[in-house]
Amino acid sequence: MKKVYLDYSATTPVDERVFKKMMPFFSQKYGNASSLHSFGQESKLVLEGAREKVADLISASSEEIIFTSSATESNNLALKGLLKKGDHLIISSIEHHCVEETANYLKREGVLVTKLEVDKKGFVKDLQKNIQKNTVLISIIHASNEIGVIQDIEKIGKIAKKNNILFHTDAAQSFGKVPIDVKYIDLLTASSHKIYGPKGAACLYVKKGIKLTPLLHGGGQEQGLRPSTYNISAIVGFGKAAEIAGKEMEKDYNHQVFLRDKIIEEALKIKGCYLNGDNQKRLPNNINLRFSGIEGEALVIKLDLEGIAVSTGSACASAKLEPSSVLLALGLKPHQAHGSLRISLGKYTTEKEIDYFLKILLKSVKELKQISPYK
Amino acid sequence: MKKVYLDYSATTPVDERVFKKMMPFFSQKYGNASSLHSFGQESKLVLEGAREKVADLISASSEEIIFTSSATESNNLALKGLLKKGDHLIISSIEHHCVEETANYLKREGVLVTKLEVDKKGFVKDLQKNIQKNTVLISIIHASNEIGVIQDIEKIGKIAKKNNILFHTDAAQSFGKVPIDVKYIDLLTASSHKIYGPKGAACLYVKKGIKLTPLLHGGGQEQGLRPSTYNISAIVGFGKAAEIAGKEMEKDYNHQVFLRDKIIEEALKIKGCYLNGDNQKRLPNNINLRFSGIEGEALVIKLDLEGIAVSTGSACASAKLEPSSVLLALGLKPHQAHGSLRISLGKYTTEKEIDYFLKILLKSVKELKQISPYK
Repeated sequence: MKKVYLDYSATTPVDERVFKKMMPFFSQKYGNASSLHSFGQESKLVLEGAREKVADLISASSEEIIFTSSATESNNLALKGLLKKGDHLIISSIEHHCVEETANYLKREGVLVTKLEVDKKGFVKDLQKNIQKNTVLISIIHASNEIGVIQDIEKIGKIAKKNNILFHTDAAQSFGKVPIDVKYIDLLTASSHKIYGPKGAACLYVKKGIKLTPLLHGGGQEQGLRPSTYNISAIVGFGKAAEIAGKEMEKDYNHQVFLRDKIIEEALKIKGCYLNGDNQKRLPNNINLRFSGIEGEALVIKLDLEGIAVSTGSACASAKLEPSSVLLALGLKPHQAHGSLRISLGKYTTEKEIDYFLKILLKSVKELKQISPYK
Repeated sequence: MKKVYLDYSATTPVDERVFKKMMPFFSQKYGNASSLHSFGQESKLVLEGAREKVADLISASSEEIIFTSSATESNNLALKGLLKKGDHLIISSIEHHCVEETANYLKREGVLVTKLEVDKKGFVKDLQKNIQKNTVLISIIHASNEIGVIQDIEKIGKIAKKNNILFHTDAAQSFGKVPIDVKYIDLLTASSHKIYGPKGAACLYVKKGIKLTPLLHGGGQEQGLRPSTYNISAIVGFGKAAEIAGKEMEKDYNHQVFLRDKIIEEALKIKGCYLNGDNQKRLPNNINLRFSGIEGEALVIKLDLEGIAVSTGSACASAKLEPSSVLLALGLKPHQAHGSLRISLGKYTTEKEIDYFLKILLKSVKELKQISPYK
């Protein structure tokens, strides 16, 4: 059976050039980067090279990059590392679960949390008027992992700066896909496995001078902020993936926007199909559709039987049965949220795959409508 | 130049059979194990297979294995996940930095901490008499990463059980090298990169029924205890490494004990050379020597110039200039602790390498003694 992967927002395959770069660091150049001997120092050198490449992509200095194991960990480190009882935190109502759940945890610990509403297209509202005297941090996702909408982080950063508040953004989905400059950003989360790098590596950008409390205690790695033996192969891969993403961003962007817009155009011809989120300021690879009278989950399973991998939203939340909180935040009703489908493209996606997907989508929607109790 | 790696306790190369098993999970079978579609479900299946293999090696059930990114993280999760203000924690004075520093952190948060003394050979003393009414957890390292001494964890576990206290052991150095049964253990830390698996994967064994507070918040992965996208290639590698370690334990043990004892025998012929730690109950691959009148660090550098990689102690602490707290706990004076060298063997170590090492060691000690102010 033909296999068509359209869930690149969940994870991406490792670029062959990245894998080639990683290969020697498993069985040949395996030294512990904290060791004094030449095996260790060789790893340390390569580690610092990767750090520079990641930093370059967001115009940061390499000493501002803290390597972690995942974007979830980076987001946890940013929020828990900065906030204490009595502080005020502002997030949006369309954050990834790992920011939302961390905020919920902090709330239980005595941190005050405001969740900004978003408009129908997914843009955050009323930031300035929700700032309080004790607001320490604003954490707003750069590009939504579900609906792909891209927030104006320069504008948010300027508001934060003006009010002397720190600004963190979860850029797991946008890093390497659209240009980012950390000029107005204090902390930023980026991930390797969303940009054709390996799983197991991510980072938190922390602007010089900002002090964080670590989540883990141990050796002194990463300026004491992230002890553990360095996952050197994964970090090397992350560096290479960042380098490639920087060099090929424009080409990959245009390729995916072309396919994305083709899907949107064709899908919207289906009766009862709507686009969730803004149609302009969205990730080049994200399409989020809803179909009236159809369960998104049923559609995922039906498409899977035809070899097509898509999702209803975040992979991290796919075991939950509740409607997506992101879609509800847009003002959708629970049954509308349940009828949604996320299609996320990659640099390897071909027009042929998209044509096949559109054919199967049309057929599947038709079949599901025939058995729908809502028709 | 000949390269001889004798720092297997810091990290090991990935076994070629492990790497072969991991290979498809970078660029071919890359699905997110939390995704509903077949790409994701394929990853999920493989993940559970790896979990079983890790569990098997310590006679645990697979649902008792929580995958993490590192032993540091596992140790942090065990201690921080169990203890709250007012609780009493017992550790030893020869823990790895990540347990010691976590205990220091918890102390600042209001947890009461007792560090058990050890005898001259490195065995913990006076456990029973340090137990208090509010003792919640005993955390004692199974095999020391520095001096290799193996504690009697069955005895410790029985004392813990009798007193209705939980027992955690950091088995990062012993897992896969000596037989372990979790019958009397409640929580256990194990790591992949110490047993010829990749860096980036580790686990915490948590006996059924024990409730932990997670360190990270996010998706519901690992029973809500460790959210993040699964590092599937690393976990697959960890599983394979555990399988091989189980099958080949006896052979590898005997091979390393033979070489270990040869080094000890020959080294002790050098004037002013002593063995740190017990000479019987120690890891098959650990030798920790001290040389009177010589700095361990100088010896590490001298050996490195001849292509030999050894260390003075924990790689995680190698940037620190203080004498090893583990060696001080044995009753050594600071200058004695500074004169120590850790040689750690692996399954790939050959007798030829050991002969070369012994030759260079002798020569280096002689040269350093000539310039020593202590002679």
